[in-house]
Amino acid sequence: MLVLGIDPGTAVTGYGLVRGDDGRKYSLLECGVIRTRARDPLAARLAEIHDGVRELIARHKPDALSIEDVFYSRNVRTTVVLGHARGVIMLAAQQAGMAIYEYPPAEIKKAVVGTGAASKQQVQYMLTRLLRLRSVPSPSDAADGVAAALTCLLAARVPTLASINDPSRTLSPIRP
Amino acid sequence: MLVLGIDPGTAVTGYGLVRGDDGRKYSLLECGVIRTRARDPLAARLAEIHDGVRELIARHKPDALSIEDVFYSRNVRTTVVLGHARGVIMLAAQQAGMAIYEYPPAEIKKAVVGTGAASKQQVQYMLTRLLRLRSVPSPSDAADGVAAALTCLLAARVPTLASINDPSRTLSPIRP
Repeated sequence: MLVLGIDPGTAVTGYGLVRGDDGRKYSLLECGVIRTRARDPLAARLAEIHDGVRELIARHKPDALSIEDVFYSRNVRTTVVLGHARGVIMLAAQQAGMAIYEYPPAEIKKAVVGTGAASKQQVQYMLTRLLRLRSVPSPSDAADGVAAALTCLLAARVPTLASINDPSRTLSPIRP
Repeated sequence: MLVLGIDPGTAVTGYGLVRGDDGRKYSLLECGVIRTRARDPLAARLAEIHDGVRELIARHKPDALSIEDVFYSRNVRTTVVLGHARGVIMLAAQQAGMAIYEYPPAEIKKAVVGTGAASKQQVQYMLTRLLRLRSVPSPSDAADGVAAALTCLLAARVPTLASINDPSRTLSPIRP
């Protein structure tokens, strides 16, 4: 299973492509960021993000999109603009017929480190361990995309007898 | 100039296509709504909205998109989900090379009725007057789309000497 993980942003959208197999081994294929210029109109920036994600999907043909959830903020306006970016990213995945999973930041930290209160450094350390990397994915937005992809794979592990009755172990459904 | 006006929503997106000429006459070509099912995943609903707007653009080839601004709300989550819908609508217009204008609800009321505190009924009454309609565009989301389109045309009237130095009379730029 190949997962495209995305940390959405209007200025910087981080992404990571992680492959998982049955043996609980994960490998990082590519990570990076899609940058847009702050002086460009919002619609032009949205088109750049949409094109960037479409290009990644066309090149790697991932099975699923795993995207950070953003339904909270101290700044409503920032979060709403971020919603625009998330919209065009989810559209690109939907147009490609991919499965779509959404995880709040705390759930990503919990999946990767074991606690929802983990620091950015702890998440980055675990990424290098789990993916056997020589260094932390950079910039940090790219690392956040990688963490989102890995969360989807960790959550999709073959269910055990105990986990079958535990809804928290299953994949998060898409919230309408 | 032909303007596609849109009142965005995840469940119901209202639209109106209004043509304006130099003689301050405006005519309504079409109005209606794009509905999505609440039980469908968000990404599927976004794709339906995007497809619906693309279809309208392909059929009418409007010069501009005029869309309601939504950067405020008592419910942050609702507004952020609405941001997703706005994102895919603006993307459709950008992909078609259209000009894009955004107006807050109060600005639309002010342009159509003369006061930002106008009621929905006052806006609908003025729509029927300005567009010489026999009845109010229905449902009300469609009327909101028509009002957005008309606002763009009213704001684009040939500038007078007084208005040239008054920035409030010019078209609203797209806010990044």
